[in-house]
Amino acid sequence: MAKIPYRLYLTEEQMPKQWYNLRADMKEQPDPMINPATMKPATEEDLYPVFCKKLAHQEMDATTRYVDIPEEILEMYKIYRPSPLCRAYNLEKALGTPAKIYYKFEGNNTSGSHKLNSAIAQAYYAKEQGLTSLTTETGAGQWGTALSEACAYFGIPLTVFMVKVSYEQKPFRKAVMKTFDAEVIPSPSMTTEAGRKILADDPNCTGSLGCAISEAVEKATHTEGCRYVLGSVLNQVLLHQSIIGLEAKKAMDILGEYPDIVIGCAGGGSNLGGLIAPYMQDKLTGKTNPRIVAVEPASCPSFTRGRYAYDFCDTGKITPMAKMYTLGSGFIPSSNHAGGLRYHGMSPILSKLYHDGYMEAVAVEQTKVFEAATFFAKYETILPAPESAHAIRAAMDEALKCKETGEEKTILFGLTGTGYFDMTAYSAYQEGRMVDYIPTDADLQRGFDSLPKIPGIQE
Amino acid sequence: MAKIPYRLYLTEEQMPKQWYNLRADMKEQPDPMINPATMKPATEEDLYPVFCKKLAHQEMDATTRYVDIPEEILEMYKIYRPSPLCRAYNLEKALGTPAKIYYKFEGNNTSGSHKLNSAIAQAYYAKEQGLTSLTTETGAGQWGTALSEACAYFGIPLTVFMVKVSYEQKPFRKAVMKTFDAEVIPSPSMTTEAGRKILADDPNCTGSLGCAISEAVEKATHTEGCRYVLGSVLNQVLLHQSIIGLEAKKAMDILGEYPDIVIGCAGGGSNLGGLIAPYMQDKLTGKTNPRIVAVEPASCPSFTRGRYAYDFCDTGKITPMAKMYTLGSGFIPSSNHAGGLRYHGMSPILSKLYHDGYMEAVAVEQTKVFEAATFFAKYETILPAPESAHAIRAAMDEALKCKETGEEKTILFGLTGTGYFDMTAYSAYQEGRMVDYIPTDADLQRGFDSLPKIPGIQE
Repeated sequence: MAKIPYRLYLTEEQMPKQWYNLRADMKEQPDPMINPATMKPATEEDLYPVFCKKLAHQEMDATTRYVDIPEEILEMYKIYRPSPLCRAYNLEKALGTPAKIYYKFEGNNTSGSHKLNSAIAQAYYAKEQGLTSLTTETGAGQWGTALSEACAYFGIPLTVFMVKVSYEQKPFRKAVMKTFDAEVIPSPSMTTEAGRKILADDPNCTGSLGCAISEAVEKATHTEGCRYVLGSVLNQVLLHQSIIGLEAKKAMDILGEYPDIVIGCAGGGSNLGGLIAPYMQDKLTGKTNPRIVAVEPASCPSFTRGRYAYDFCDTGKITPMAKMYTLGSGFIPSSNHAGGLRYHGMSPILSKLYHDGYMEAVAVEQTKVFEAATFFAKYETILPAPESAHAIRAAMDEALKCKETGEEKTILFGLTGTGYFDMTAYSAYQEGRMVDYIPTDADLQRGFDSLPKIPGIQE
Repeated sequence: MAKIPYRLYLTEEQMPKQWYNLRADMKEQPDPMINPATMKPATEEDLYPVFCKKLAHQEMDATTRYVDIPEEILEMYKIYRPSPLCRAYNLEKALGTPAKIYYKFEGNNTSGSHKLNSAIAQAYYAKEQGLTSLTTETGAGQWGTALSEACAYFGIPLTVFMVKVSYEQKPFRKAVMKTFDAEVIPSPSMTTEAGRKILADDPNCTGSLGCAISEAVEKATHTEGCRYVLGSVLNQVLLHQSIIGLEAKKAMDILGEYPDIVIGCAGGGSNLGGLIAPYMQDKLTGKTNPRIVAVEPASCPSFTRGRYAYDFCDTGKITPMAKMYTLGSGFIPSSNHAGGLRYHGMSPILSKLYHDGYMEAVAVEQTKVFEAATFFAKYETILPAPESAHAIRAAMDEALKCKETGEEKTILFGLTGTGYFDMTAYSAYQEGRMVDYIPTDADLQRGFDSLPKIPGIQE
């Protein structure tokens, strides 16, 4: 057999033409979303003011196993997909491990991450429904950039509310979004009631993700033909992101490989849910039994230390409530935390799978994460996003275990993106200024105290 | 026939295993380099103190047509190569042109550009000869990043002298280089005689490329087992960069396509020389006659307004002198110039070909360049480096001419890299703060006045 290449790119013909809906193979479904206005399970129609109709349908549809990817979306996917499946020969050699390490690299597009996969779908369906604008919020800017690209491509105006402190500290991200014609507004702003209220209380407020979401949702619900879109957590996002796993599996099938362990970093779950989708299908249908490992920051440990409870998906407490592993929407990660993945909750689908024992989770400290990132960069010559480096850390740890035991395991991990806009954090690591932070039980309790009360369901 | 894909990646098996040496097919050779110490043509041995032996040989070897790429270099190439040949369907549609536009995209690696192709070769040959360290200078940081990656991979220590003003204004580039273990020193520094002298005269000096080169060369020549390396202009660099054109041609051959026009941006000529290599071969050997177009900034117009004369390759006037199109090593582009490509001279090989009528050249103004960059980004969803956007501008202009005439020309251009570290310039463009600058004849004359006098050759 020919040597496995460093990079395998599927051809356009080999590209998946359908997304895969994990819920169709789950024996037990995630608990239904709760509409906070009625305190009853949300219906598809309840979601129409927030999401366009097709996306609301995808959000609720637990039975359709495969969803055709519209031709227009496929056409844009073809500009940066298929993404390569990479064999980490150099990393293996540097670690001296008998393990075979593969990674699916999603960073070779201007958004710098996998976020574009869902941004394209959400912009397309909005355009198709005749909506005339979209809004979203962004913290670090990855999601805002991805959505800007998608909206520019489909010609739909976008307003991004960017947390003011990021807006001021990350002018480059803002400039990238503006290149793609997005209107980028520092939040809190005077353009919304929510923003004006916050600024009246504190004119120097530097903003928060919760505030930016509130502004974005207010603008969406108060503007004719406008909707709010979200880059993670949602079922629809996991559906779109399944393209990652479907491509990875197809490529590994071509190579005659099957992973013993699949590893993904986990913030809201968009990459993890996408990467593992076809392997979780194998597991759910009893075909195979690979280990599936979520990696989260020790400073924001929703899987490993959170509660499986109903919570708001946003810190502004305006979205429907979902049953998920959560630290509470009131939980605020330490400002020392540099590595992304700071979302308080976790995809309801992944939460259910974890709860039912189909997945493992590990929490890693950020200095260990940046150590892995730097090691990886040297041998694989890709500068990873801090988020992605969580998965690198766990993959390296698994490979080092194989070195001890002599096992030739096959490891697949998701390299979600590049870290070109995260050099402040790299500098902090290089200069020894980065510290680890593990929340105390009291810190976590403050977050749990913010969990909603739902009569008869969650008291 | 199947539709031409958006992206064509050659397989590892299809990758070129040899570089192509353009000089072997040139009927007339570039004039020899002159050793400033003897004022006589430089020999291969004259170059040994500056370059390692294999590279000195490649610099002087005008007859070997194909040079085997060492296995170790091929192995590192495979991490990020072959780079994709892209069909710009969306750009064509947006322009409404009947032209077919292709681009060879070299930006999908952490250095963000094609520079890595030669950095790997230079680091490898240095390591092979048993050298123990390398030095170089960097302005904006692209070359420094590429060389850092290559040196980390081959385990050879690197010192980068970075122009102090860039060091301070571009902390992110510095941090990337440090991730790859490079020692990055702001220049002028107290670590060299040259630096100390400058700082004694002016303690607040913010540096220049000339000063950084002087420091790097001093360190190289005063350190046992150390050499200085350069990322453009040189014959050896063009040899290594031929991988770009060889891959592009192989991919176009597979698609049954042949360009009517090949377009590349030109600073020192490393990308242009690499991209056009196999097409220039066809032209030199009378097989075909495509148009070959160099695009340079109007603010640094070495081809279009320079002199074909002997000049130093560096502003420090310490390297051998080469016959090339040059503005004079004393020419300083306006500080308003944001778009890279600010080298005063041009590859001697390309200069000779241009002089002999094998190539055309156009100069473009930077606001037009950023206009093209922004347009391109929206439709092709790649944020281009300003350097690359010079080629985009010219390709778009050619495609728009086709729109007028109805000609279905096939255009190939080089997209050398991404602009993630150039957002300051993008912001200036977006905010209307970018101005164009065209040097006056008097400005140019000041540069020409710095040309060296060589008895009997150039008075």
